[in-house]
Amino acid sequence: MTKTAITPTRAENYPEWYQQVISAADLAENSAVRGCMVIKPWGYAIWELIQADLDKRFKKTGHVNAYFPLLIPLSHLEKEAEHVEGFAKECAVVTHHRLVPDGKGGLKPDGELEEPFVIRPTSETIIGESFSKWVKSYRDLPLLINQWANVMRWEMRTRMFLRTSEFLWQEGHTVHATDTEAVAETIQMLGVYADFVQDVLAMPVIKGEKPCFERFPGAVNTYCIEAMMQDCKALQAGTSHFLGQNFAKASNIQFQNKSGEMETAWTTSWGVSTRMIGGLIMTHSDDNGLVLPPRIAPYQIVIQPIYRNDEQRDTVINYCNSLKQDLESQLFAGNEIRVHIDDRDIQGGAKSWEWIKKGVPLRLEVGMRDVENNAVMLSRRDDVGNKNSIAKSDLINGAVKILTKMQTSLFAKAESFRNERMTAISSIDEFNKFFAGDKNVDRGFAVAYAVDEVGIEEFIKPLKVTARCIPLANNDVAGACIFTGKPASHKMVFAKAY
Amino acid sequence: MTKTAITPTRAENYPEWYQQVISAADLAENSAVRGCMVIKPWGYAIWELIQADLDKRFKKTGHVNAYFPLLIPLSHLEKEAEHVEGFAKECAVVTHHRLVPDGKGGLKPDGELEEPFVIRPTSETIIGESFSKWVKSYRDLPLLINQWANVMRWEMRTRMFLRTSEFLWQEGHTVHATDTEAVAETIQMLGVYADFVQDVLAMPVIKGEKPCFERFPGAVNTYCIEAMMQDCKALQAGTSHFLGQNFAKASNIQFQNKSGEMETAWTTSWGVSTRMIGGLIMTHSDDNGLVLPPRIAPYQIVIQPIYRNDEQRDTVINYCNSLKQDLESQLFAGNEIRVHIDDRDIQGGAKSWEWIKKGVPLRLEVGMRDVENNAVMLSRRDDVGNKNSIAKSDLINGAVKILTKMQTSLFAKAESFRNERMTAISSIDEFNKFFAGDKNVDRGFAVAYAVDEVGIEEFIKPLKVTARCIPLANNDVAGACIFTGKPASHKMVFAKAY
Repeated sequence: MTKTAITPTRAENYPEWYQQVISAADLAENSAVRGCMVIKPWGYAIWELIQADLDKRFKKTGHVNAYFPLLIPLSHLEKEAEHVEGFAKECAVVTHHRLVPDGKGGLKPDGELEEPFVIRPTSETIIGESFSKWVKSYRDLPLLINQWANVMRWEMRTRMFLRTSEFLWQEGHTVHATDTEAVAETIQMLGVYADFVQDVLAMPVIKGEKPCFERFPGAVNTYCIEAMMQDCKALQAGTSHFLGQNFAKASNIQFQNKSGEMETAWTTSWGVSTRMIGGLIMTHSDDNGLVLPPRIAPYQIVIQPIYRNDEQRDTVINYCNSLKQDLESQLFAGNEIRVHIDDRDIQGGAKSWEWIKKGVPLRLEVGMRDVENNAVMLSRRDDVGNKNSIAKSDLINGAVKILTKMQTSLFAKAESFRNERMTAISSIDEFNKFFAGDKNVDRGFAVAYAVDEVGIEEFIKPLKVTARCIPLANNDVAGACIFTGKPASHKMVFAKAY
Repeated sequence: MTKTAITPTRAENYPEWYQQVISAADLAENSAVRGCMVIKPWGYAIWELIQADLDKRFKKTGHVNAYFPLLIPLSHLEKEAEHVEGFAKECAVVTHHRLVPDGKGGLKPDGELEEPFVIRPTSETIIGESFSKWVKSYRDLPLLINQWANVMRWEMRTRMFLRTSEFLWQEGHTVHATDTEAVAETIQMLGVYADFVQDVLAMPVIKGEKPCFERFPGAVNTYCIEAMMQDCKALQAGTSHFLGQNFAKASNIQFQNKSGEMETAWTTSWGVSTRMIGGLIMTHSDDNGLVLPPRIAPYQIVIQPIYRNDEQRDTVINYCNSLKQDLESQLFAGNEIRVHIDDRDIQGGAKSWEWIKKGVPLRLEVGMRDVENNAVMLSRRDDVGNKNSIAKSDLINGAVKILTKMQTSLFAKAESFRNERMTAISSIDEFNKFFAGDKNVDRGFAVAYAVDEVGIEEFIKPLKVTARCIPLANNDVAGACIFTGKPASHKMVFAKAY
């Protein structure tokens, strides 16, 4: 048996493997604040790449960024009934505005606020307040705003990246003159998410609509992208909500139409968060640690110089610097290749394993012999344990091609994995059998006719299964709901989920 | 008298003029949350440019970004005595983690926390917790981390950008093996701030050290950059703190040195915030609204197409698009020129004034006659009311030069303004006269010999004057302190301040 860098392996204990990959790649750690994590530099660098790429896509589709208050007055949150009910149980509440000595050498809260504030779990209600002032006429529409921010939901069971009390995200909030335009925006942004997640994170996703009982609190329709992790569980990687006029009514967002009459506007909201990094980890990583698709790797290539003395060092480092420069002049996916020279004084094997566990796509070792031969020793993250000498010029000319191939291979591998684990289910018995048995063995996605009604939850809840979505593509079909027997106009995807 | 776009003018009522400039430029607005503002898209675009530029400078000097929790357990904040005393009076305190019905149709806080949390007013104590785990050996040093985040200080008197309860900032936190290295880092980052503020925001600043009674709570030395606003008041635009071993001791940040012994580390922290935007507004703006130095303008050039019918529209818009493309292919200060075509269907004069009030450096009007003449009508923000026809090719070839000139002129103008208002003061009588009289007339910066001792505050407080800093440059001098008569080894700068 080959020793792997991560213990336990995926097969031995998947949840523990996940934590160990995060720790070995130095992505994040738990903090002294219950349920809140510290995002360490390597993890944050991934988030910065996600932000930069998504931000470009948002701006290309006409959105601009703004920033709204962290705190929401209780009275604002209460405006939309379903919404507040959905979030009341997990709100961090600010009740005081200073600290005073507690008489025991410590401090205690003082200065009770007349009205408590909630740390935003999401910002529809506080943004609605502004929008009601910004929107006056049809000329002000559409209003297309995005916010990059931290939000807080007091979660009882947390897991790094996947579910934390505080997390980082972006939340788009838009206002439109008609329902048609608002629905189109909702679907457009779902597409932006899907393209990004598939093209950059190399994660195949199913675009779908949430069944009625899984909607965002206060939404008319919620759309989502669903990915399959390596333990066959589903992960919701992003959501886009058509809010109808619910929030516009609650916040009084009205506009004068072309005929001079006042109309209530239509709104949308959509978001992705640091949770995506959890999905990224679980889609590609292996028993040697993190695997990063090249487009999301903070360093796509790490160069490890090897030398015995100062004289050798000068020669090797010069060679490495010029190699770095040549590689950086290449464009991969529209950006300069990101190259790092790791000249730290630590043992070579330990250094190599560090970058393997961090998921860097390509590593180059450069010693005196390589300099003499005008070559480098190339190691690939998708072929751990092997290294091959390659001419320097071949590497420089071929780097973009190698990275592109690695990117598409990772997507293809994840896509086959998922497609092999999508099973058509045609009866409730089959459904029960599919999800029954050892709860550590997950069977993937079940696809079955099902009506979009509240009642069907009763059939799936006992199995700890959730209805993930009604896929948007190739789903114009008709059959009998496997739960109720009623005619269903679509299939639905079911899975155990994060 | 010429009518101006902003009422009142600076001369009539400076504080109100400031608010009106913000409102007219659509930079920000007050929110429903006491002391918290909404940063609107035009204001946020300026912040994004500040972030992007500073982030590059931080990375160039070896820093990486990370993210730490929003909430700080009370017990952590209490660890550094001076620090907690400095912030206790303005802390937002989280005491509950859910909401339940209050029996009157509303909600009330529930689920009281065992230990309250404070929303970070700054993050030394929570970051210290992580650093104590990250730093083990001298090999882990220096540790150079930055965080982009929101922070909260419950301010009683707030003013948009200058002083708000919640604000956006970056906070650098670094750990070093020696005091020398930590001091060098503190001074280096002060230099990074000064270069950025002078080169990009075109604001002249004095680099200096804060007198002992103006230090950051818990710091050994605090360094700052001080700018002069158009009402002659001082604005602190950034600070960099040498924290000695105070926080390292409080958080137990220790490392094993090369000889294998444990040593306590030395730390620094440094930050700038959205407050800089307040300084930017007050340095350059005039009675027609915001004036933006080109390097910080979200759009450096706005093109306004003018046409009477669809046929003309096609011709004019084509011309504008090609003009935009040609301009964007020019590099100004290392970036593509930022050009926007404003084709909204609103009256031409109103449209022009909107961009004037938003501070856009150059506006181009393009109508049929301009197309025929291969020309554009050019208006400059530094010459409101005039416009001149210029050949399209001349504009394209000259745009970078014009923008560069505008940038340096704005700096030069602000620098002369400040230099003319720096007065050498040689006695306490002169000092009192300088700052006495009508409190709406501010006299600028007083420069005098003064000892760095707590006692001198008594002389200046009654005049509502503050000691801004001991300048670092050209200050190796000696004279008698104007307050105490004791020998002073430097001059100090005094001013009324924001």
